[in-house]
Formats: sequence, C-alpha cells, structure tokens
Amino acid sequence: MLDSTPSLERLIDELRKLPGVGRKTATRLAFFILQQPERDVSELAQALRDVKHNVRLCSRCFNITETDPCPICRAPERDAAMLCVVEQPQDLLAIERGHDYHGRYHVLHGVLSPLDGVGPDDLRIPQLLQRLEQGGVDEVLVATNFSMEGEATALYLSKILHPRGIKVTRLAHGIPMGGDLEYLDAATLSGAIARRQQM
Amino acid sequence: MLDSTPSLERLIDELRKLPGVGRKTATRLAFFILQQPERDVSELAQALRDVKHNVRLCSRCFNITETDPCPICRAPERDAAMLCVVEQPQDLLAIERGHDYHGRYHVLHGVLSPLDGVGPDDLRIPQLLQRLEQGGVDEVLVATNFSMEGEATALYLSKILHPRGIKVTRLAHGIPMGGDLEYLDAATLSGAIARRQQM
Repeated sequence: MLDSTPSLERLIDELRKLPGVGRKTATRLAFFILQQPERDVSELAQALRDVKHNVRLCSRCFNITETDPCPICRAPERDAAMLCVVEQPQDLLAIERGHDYHGRYHVLHGVLSPLDGVGPDDLRIPQLLQRLEQGGVDEVLVATNFSMEGEATALYLSKILHPRGIKVTRLAHGIPMGGDLEYLDAATLSGAIARRQQM
Repeated sequence: MLDSTPSLERLIDELRKLPGVGRKTATRLAFFILQQPERDVSELAQALRDVKHNVRLCSRCFNITETDPCPICRAPERDAAMLCVVEQPQDLLAIERGHDYHGRYHVLHGVLSPLDGVGPDDLRIPQLLQRLEQGGVDEVLVATNFSMEGEATALYLSKILHPRGIKVTRLAHGIPMGGDLEYLDAATLSGAIARRQQM
C-alpha cells in the first residue's frame, strides 16, 4: 500500500495523538493543512511551541499564567479573604465567565482518587494549607465537580479545613437554568426536592 | 472576562481554523497540548512545518509527493497505457488501498463547478490533454466522485477525449458491498435495477 508521503504520514501520526482524533480525522486535518498557505501553518506551529514555552503555573494559586503571580493573584480589587478551590484551570475560566465571583482561587490540578492512587499530596492541597496558614482567608468555596471524586474531594477538604476555623462552602446543587425535568437524572431531581426552597 | 493566557488564546484561535473544530474543541485540544511533554508538542510543530516544506505535487500526475516524479509515475511495473483520473490525492490513496489498479493516475485537484466559477482550466485538465498528446495512453478510467459535479466532470472528459480515439471508462455504479437495500437511496437502487446483470 502506498502511504501518501512520509511527511504527511508523520503529521497524521502526530495528529492522532490528540484526544478524539482517529485516523480518518487526522487524515482529513493533514490534507487540509497541506492545502493551507505556508504562513498559516507556520503560525499554528509557532503557537504550539509558544504555549509550551510561555505558559506556566502561578506559584500562589496554580492557575495557568504567563506572569507569576497570575493576574488574579495580583489584582488588588479581588477579595483575598475568599478562596475558590477548583479541579482544573478550565473550571476557573468557567467561573470567571460568570463575572460574579470576586475572590481568589486555588487550582488543585486533579481530584482525590484512591483507586488511581491519587492522594492529597498528589494535588495542590499541601500548598492550599500553606496559603491558609499565612492567614487572611475567611472562606473557602469548594467548586470541585459534582462527580463521585469531586464530591469526595470536597468532603475531604471540609474535614481538614473545619478544625482550622475556616468557613467551608460548596456550590449549590439543583436544577440548572433551562433544565427540563423530563430529562434530568433522578439524583439531581430528588436532591432538588429535598432541598426545596420557600417562594 | 479573563481570557486564559495570551499564548493559549492564540493557540485556540489557530486550532479553530481547522475544519470541524469549534471553540470548545479547540479549547479542549489546547489544554491537552499544554499538558503534554514539550518534546511531543515540538514534534507536532515540526511535523506541521515539514509537511508544508517537503510535500509538493508530481509534475506528471499531480499527486502529492516528496520526490518528482512521484513513486507511482516512476514505477516501471505500473501500466503506462492506463490513466485513472481522480478529483483529489485522497481518492488516489483510496484506490491504492485496494491493490487492484495497476495503471497510473492523473489528479484534477477539483471538479468542474460552473456555479463556483471552476472551469477546465482551473483543474489539471490542460495538463491531462498534454500527457495524452505525448501518446502511449489507451484508456482513461474516470474515477471522479458520483456527485453532480463529479458526474458532470466525467461527462465533460468523455466528450473531449472520445474524438482523440481514447477509450474512456467510468467506475461501475451500483450497490456497495454489504449494502442494505432498505437504507439505500432511490437513485442507486433504481440504477442498479436498470443495469442488472445476468447471473
């Protein structure tokens, strides 16, 4: 079998390493790239290198940043008495899109998962405790996902933070905006009934 | 709104130029790339540059190649009396995967499409005529797609090649292997009945 050309095959192999990209998609992308102007392809290649070269983690909150400390940790108008704990930088970005949270963050880079051998020391939990020991934080809002591991991580954090006299809060649980009862999972729905609020 | 970081945003913008990649997919890919080892990302960047640098079109058949003429045009065992005309290099690769065709190729790089302003001179049709004028070709197998434009291109080629005394053939039309009558389109099915063959 003729394998297109060596350079094209190599590009297809590299593209297949991306998540959700199989051989067919990789081939389609590679032929698309082949037909683009050299300048465009060069810009994509440069952007790939730059992202690895320029992006690092903030030494305070472990969010991704190109300056250390990150813009949020440096912003004087952000409330330093409140920390929001998230699993990943993507979660932080989702919260920032809402414009409603004005405190600071702490990114764990994962969740507790004993089956996968992920314990507190594999996350940025020791660094969270260090930050809290420096004082000035009154409330920790735990915004891990509502998955089994996210819930377990939230529970663990609340257990270790309560004795330190810090108020630990969790994102509200319930029916999302526009949520259609017919298609909601039973756990969300029964939880929303149990936590029903007076109108 | 906090836009992750400038380098990451730029990578997301570049990835969004790829076909079928929207903002969500581009963001997912960018965060995946951010977490890969620098060596892997560098290899992808290099593969992108190499493909633009190394891959060109064969000056005879216009297939993609890294050597000119391409391996198929150079292969002495391939039948030079037969040319298979395809729309794109991808079509050539699909035929090569079958191992049943032993002639040579001519890649048009498109199809006739008057509505989009694509005429014969925008494809590699003048170069096809030049090749045929040099003699030695007995048969041209038109393997354009069975789309409206592909069929129109096939018809056009048969009209201009017949007066030159060249046998023009077309891929057989019918029900694909494993084809389920229930789900076949009406045109394929009625064509297969009209062209029914004695068993």
